[in-house]
Amino acid sequence: MKEICICPRLSKAMDLLGKRWTTLILYQLLEGPQRFNEIESALPISGRLLSERLKELEKEGIVERAVYSEVPVRVEYSLTEKGLALEGAIREVEKWSKIWIN
Amino acid sequence: MKEICICPRLSKAMDLLGKRWTTLILYQLLEGPQRFNEIESALPISGRLLSERLKELEKEGIVERAVYSEVPVRVEYSLTEKGLALEGAIREVEKWSKIWIN
Repeated sequence: MKEICICPRLSKAMDLLGKRWTTLILYQLLEGPQRFNEIESALPISGRLLSERLKELEKEGIVERAVYSEVPVRVEYSLTEKGLALEGAIREVEKWSKIWIN
Repeated sequence: MKEICICPRLSKAMDLLGKRWTTLILYQLLEGPQRFNEIESALPISGRLLSERLKELEKEGIVERAVYSEVPVRVEYSLTEKGLALEGAIREVEKWSKIWIN
C-alpha cells in the first residue's frame, strides 16, 4: 500500500455514505431542517429503517436532532456542519446519475 | 414520494459506488490505465475480490479491459467515459473525508 494512500479515509467515507438510504436521507435534508414525518413521506423508506439511519447519522455527527418544547413537542432533524459539507459530493453523484443512470 | 424525486437514480448510483472497494478502485484508476497487478498492489484488497469488482464495473460500463497481443499478453484496465465522469464525485468525497474523517 502506498504511503500517501487515501484508502482508510475514503473507504470509511464510502462505507458510511454507501449504506442503503443514507445518501437519499442526506439529499432530502439538504432542503433544510425537517420533521421525521416529512422525511418519511418524501422517501420510499419504512419508518423503522429511517429511524435507524437517522440514529446512525446522529452518532456520526452528520445529522442533529432538535426537540422544541411546544405542545405537541416538535422534533426536527437537520444537517450539522459535517453533514452540510457533503453537499458537493451529493450534488456530484446526483449530476452523474442524471446523465449516466437510466 | 414526490413527482420529481431523484430517488431511483441517486439510489442506484449509490448502490453501485457504495459497494465495498468500488470507489477505491475507481480512485486508483483515475491515475490512468493500469494492469491488474498495479491496482492490486496499490490497494489493500485480495486479487479475487479485485477481479470480482472489476468485472462488475466492466458490466456497468464504468471500466474497460483492453488486451494487447504482446508477448507476454498485456491486459490493462481503464475508466470509460462513464467512469471518468465520476471524477468530480470521487474528488468531492475525498475532499470531505480528508477534513471530516479521522
